[in-house]
Amino acid sequence: MTLTISAVEGLPELREGDDLARMIAERADLLDGDVLVVAQKAISKIEGRIARLHERDKVDVILGESKSVVRRRGDLIIAETRHGFVCASAGVDASNAPEPGTLVLLPVDPDASATRLRDRLGELTDHDVGVVVSDSFGRPFRQGTTDVAIGAAGVEVLRDLKGERDPAGYELRSTVIAIADEIAGAAQLVMGKLDRTPVAIVRGLDIPGDGNARDIVMPAERNLFP
Amino acid sequence: MTLTISAVEGLPELREGDDLARMIAERADLLDGDVLVVAQKAISKIEGRIARLHERDKVDVILGESKSVVRRRGDLIIAETRHGFVCASAGVDASNAPEPGTLVLLPVDPDASATRLRDRLGELTDHDVGVVVSDSFGRPFRQGTTDVAIGAAGVEVLRDLKGERDPAGYELRSTVIAIADEIAGAAQLVMGKLDRTPVAIVRGLDIPGDGNARDIVMPAERNLFP
Repeated sequence: MTLTISAVEGLPELREGDDLARMIAERADLLDGDVLVVAQKAISKIEGRIARLHERDKVDVILGESKSVVRRRGDLIIAETRHGFVCASAGVDASNAPEPGTLVLLPVDPDASATRLRDRLGELTDHDVGVVVSDSFGRPFRQGTTDVAIGAAGVEVLRDLKGERDPAGYELRSTVIAIADEIAGAAQLVMGKLDRTPVAIVRGLDIPGDGNARDIVMPAERNLFP
Repeated sequence: MTLTISAVEGLPELREGDDLARMIAERADLLDGDVLVVAQKAISKIEGRIARLHERDKVDVILGESKSVVRRRGDLIIAETRHGFVCASAGVDASNAPEPGTLVLLPVDPDASATRLRDRLGELTDHDVGVVVSDSFGRPFRQGTTDVAIGAAGVEVLRDLKGERDPAGYELRSTVIAIADEIAGAAQLVMGKLDRTPVAIVRGLDIPGDGNARDIVMPAERNLFP
């Protein structure tokens, strides 16, 4: 089995209302089963999810995006977003913002954003592709960020191996693989952080599905780190 | 930029003392700059890191591999391993074990395991490759596991973007990307969990480096979830 992961090159700086699906379709030859990974910032920009700092303080913006504050130390706020994601600054970020003095917020409903992009790509290209919306999240016990899925459409998100058996016949009792997070992280390897390449195509997976990234959120009753 | 990720097919069931580098070199045409991702279980098997259950209880084995227990609920033990990794059961696992009644333990020093494999591959193929040893870890706030790096040699592990600027000139103050974890997760997408494909080749990254996976461990003073 071989996967290829390619950045979609030459996208312009994105603005509110842009038809990102068309921009992608013009620059990439898609195939059925491809998974498009789109950086959250690209989605937020076309959806106008931008806050102006002169109206509010950055901390106010972060708290406005938060359901709860999970940990706080100095400038660092680990918050639970309204979607249930736990991440630094509730996903609010100044880097790669459209202009100084603005902040990019997470999409209101990234699963719906992924579905819209997928449907529009289907219209334009006649191909059935999956879409993952990715963002860079830190992790409690490991340094650095990895990209994870905050939105998904048309792909497998969590693969449950329960009841399947390994080659020795041992039942894999509780193995669930967060496939969509691994796809997001894989795409980050070609997207970079500084270059303007917010879209990558993962080809060869062939894992159609109907999971939502929201399904990845750990339910409160199973959260051992409240 | 395009990456390809391919499983190395046809590896036999591994045993203690096997020359895994030779087995890989016989089945794959390596190139300079390739990164080989090897599942922890493959390394543990060739290094004889197997415990027999009739000698001890599984919980005893887990505690023996642990520096501390971070959380415990029912059968679930989240432990800090002697390497500093925080994961379920201190990485002790019965699935894909060599035979019933045995458990596979993490390698004693997975960074050293990666270095040995890299050096041996260099000897056999004359190619300068990177090696990542991967394992499937759960995460506090997200369901499912993703594969992460528990060992590394000859590759960049953490990419620090501090001081670099985004296209708008905004300085990325504290962005560190856990590249090696994203590589491990990407490789998992082709390795599967049930098939006997514990080795994958990631081609196209070209990120030589000298990081250790141990560097990814969050220092105690920065751990907000003790």
